Amino acid sequence: MIPTHIEHIGIAVKDLEKAQQYYEEVLGMKCYAIETVEDQKVKTAFFQVGQTKIELLEATAADSPVAKFIEKRGEGIHHIAFAVKDLAIRLKEVEQKGVLLIDQEPRAGAEGMNIGFLHPKSTFGVLTEFCEKREESV
Amino acid sequence: MIPTHIEHIGIAVKDLEKAQQYYEEVLGMKCYAIETVEDQKVKTAFFQVGQTKIELLEATAADSPVAKFIEKRGEGIHHIAFAVKDLAIRLKEVEQKGVLLIDQEPRAGAEGMNIGFLHPKSTFGVLTEFCEKREESV
Repeated sequence: MIPTHIEHIGIAVKDLEKAQQYYEEVLGMKCYAIETVEDQKVKTAFFQVGQTKIELLEATAADSPVAKFIEKRGEGIHHIAFAVKDLAIRLKEVEQKGVLLIDQEPRAGAEGMNIGFLHPKSTFGVLTEFCEKREESV
Repeated sequence: MIPTHIEHIGIAVKDLEKAQQYYEEVLGMKCYAIETVEDQKVKTAFFQVGQTKIELLEATAADSPVAKFIEKRGEGIHHIAFAVKDLAIRLKEVEQKGVLLIDQEPRAGAEGMNIGFLHPKSTFGVLTEFCEKREESV
């Protein structure tokens, strides 16, 4: 398995609006989507830069994983998401190679993607996501 | 200014060899370069994934910025590097917009790049690098 590219980089922020302003006015990127992922208790803002997206993440509840991350480590880079093919197979594959999975099976993420997280304990401290575009039923 | 793409993502690790093995054997990427940057007191290993490189960073001295990072936050994602054109101008530009710079002027980084860092205090906790391929003199 070789990921095709880095699909996105997730960045935990306290105030989505202020961070968005920085990415737009200072770095010159354009936010093309704002989306709330209820399951993860986050509000997200997306920016495209080359092949990769910057995904800003603001917690929508005190028990959101993003709120806990900020509490422990402060604002900053939260995770890297690699685009893969055959996500379910890839998760099993890395598990067989000794990686601890957060998600045993693919689940729905933002932007019409199926996603699965690998635990940072077995990925040298990097919260790692695999993701794959969800196939639309015809 | 809009960065053209994410040139690399820097990841701080304690043991470069072990981390390299994970990126190769589990994620299926191939390390194409190992380089020591004396100035930064780091040994680096590079992997290409789409447009972007993963740059693993191991400290070569106790007072290396990477050693300090790991001491404070543990292993994990250390910085994001955006590819820009006219690096020196870009650094001045963001400084004028209120960003605190670590590097006032471009300096030499790994892989024949000129680089400049923005301070995470003014970039919502993200240690941010701008980089540009160094022009070779003829």
